[in-house]
Amino acid sequence: MPEAGSTSSSPAGRESFGSRLGAAMAARGPLCVGIDPHPALLKDWGLTDDAAGLRRFSLTVLEAVGSLAAAVKPQVALYERHGSAGMAVLEEVLAAAAQAQVLTIADAKRGDIGSTMAAYADAWLRDGSSLAADSVTLSPYLGFESLRPALDLAADNGRGVFVLALTSNPEGASVQHVGGADSVARRIIEAAAAENSRYAGSLGSVGLVVGATVGSALTDLHLDLPSVRGPILAPGLGAQGATPADLRRTFGAAYPQVLGTSSRDILVAGPGAQGLRDAALRTLVGLRGE
Amino acid sequence: MPEAGSTSSSPAGRESFGSRLGAAMAARGPLCVGIDPHPALLKDWGLTDDAAGLRRFSLTVLEAVGSLAAAVKPQVALYERHGSAGMAVLEEVLAAAAQAQVLTIADAKRGDIGSTMAAYADAWLRDGSSLAADSVTLSPYLGFESLRPALDLAADNGRGVFVLALTSNPEGASVQHVGGADSVARRIIEAAAAENSRYAGSLGSVGLVVGATVGSALTDLHLDLPSVRGPILAPGLGAQGATPADLRRTFGAAYPQVLGTSSRDILVAGPGAQGLRDAALRTLVGLRGE
Repeated sequence: MPEAGSTSSSPAGRESFGSRLGAAMAARGPLCVGIDPHPALLKDWGLTDDAAGLRRFSLTVLEAVGSLAAAVKPQVALYERHGSAGMAVLEEVLAAAAQAQVLTIADAKRGDIGSTMAAYADAWLRDGSSLAADSVTLSPYLGFESLRPALDLAADNGRGVFVLALTSNPEGASVQHVGGADSVARRIIEAAAAENSRYAGSLGSVGLVVGATVGSALTDLHLDLPSVRGPILAPGLGAQGATPADLRRTFGAAYPQVLGTSSRDILVAGPGAQGLRDAALRTLVGLRGE
Repeated sequence: MPEAGSTSSSPAGRESFGSRLGAAMAARGPLCVGIDPHPALLKDWGLTDDAAGLRRFSLTVLEAVGSLAAAVKPQVALYERHGSAGMAVLEEVLAAAAQAQVLTIADAKRGDIGSTMAAYADAWLRDGSSLAADSVTLSPYLGFESLRPALDLAADNGRGVFVLALTSNPEGASVQHVGGADSVARRIIEAAAAENSRYAGSLGSVGLVVGATVGSALTDLHLDLPSVRGPILAPGLGAQGATPADLRRTFGAAYPQVLGTSSRDILVAGPGAQGLRDAALRTLVGLRGE
């Protein structure tokens, strides 16, 4: 169980992830750009489906939008597809993002128990790890509390996590909605809220993944997202079906916590840097409500 | 949804994973040895906590028990800890296991949706991928059906999956037991049973992960494991608390499907090959009921 929170900077001297992300969202707007080197996009960009293509794709996106977005989110599966060579590219992308001072969310959806979970935490959240990111996405099928080693290491290092809570894929309900008034999703959300009590400031470092197109499930399941006081990563903007206006409607009072995530909608505007920037800016304008 | 099953060999010409695993369990006994290069074990073995240490550790275990065990299970988190260099070692270990003709279970607990899930399937289950294993463990927080790309690619390639169902860590119940008579764990188990109807023979290629120390949860939750007709990976033998006799008691009629998994109990007997072999044989004798 976390200790009662107090400061917003970690023992490592780094400000907490929640504070850093909150500042970036205030300064730039609540946009996270997914770096998703899908085989079809690589082809559209005239790149090869190998480590060299991955590298060019990823660094192009980063260079184009790294100064506009609050965060970038490399999709780990698409690097893992290329084995260790792909993971080496991901290491380079994470290092380049740190250099460019844009926050990173490694979209890895990892989850395990005990010393194995500690090893995943070590990979993604430890200072000095070649795969260290500002935050990582986690999957809680083994229980929210099984993620403890990552929650604690993140707190120690000024890094963060986003825990899968409620997703908009149709088959997600068969796990996440189970339990009625005390649903699986609700348990995850309440555990994240409790966890964020260790953090001062307006935004804790324990975020959630909640689909942009979950519709009325938030109210149907009586889910209280404002109480979480953590960032909400909302994938599904654009190509997958939600507009910024939908996001405001769906999240209501929790909208200030929402980090809208767009991947394909922006990436199809590449490979030219100006096209990528314009697409990101269009999305940002919508998210800011300008 | 799967087509009604018929043959036990895949279009790729490889026999189905279930058939291959069933044959290995019949010939060698139902033992899977975990290859878990934990930092503490590396130290005990006099090895460095880096890629070189990982490599020596993993190949030593493989050489010692590769001809005794039905399968070996590298714990992916412990390679990922060392970034791309660790993943390169894992590639070498998977290739060496294939050479040694022992089945591999990549314990990765991956899970995502759509084209991202397809990318994970591609990494672990595609012929020609540097990380291809005979099978991979998957996590179903996004719904069993979200794993479809892996289920289908495994079937096409004579490979398999083990889906997390019911684990014995105390915090697992907060997700897996939710829903009463129609619990999350039960939904996963029923979906795996339906999926295995595509496979002929006694063992389908869709396995489950069920903790060796789940106690009475199987009967409490009315879970029908024999109906699954798939292999059951049961971690928790030895150091984590279950004896082979416990396994028989816990799994009852499903015991013939159970692949007992031991890691630490065997690994602490290293680094000598004879010690590792003796420890594996002792466990095997218990599992075979000799």
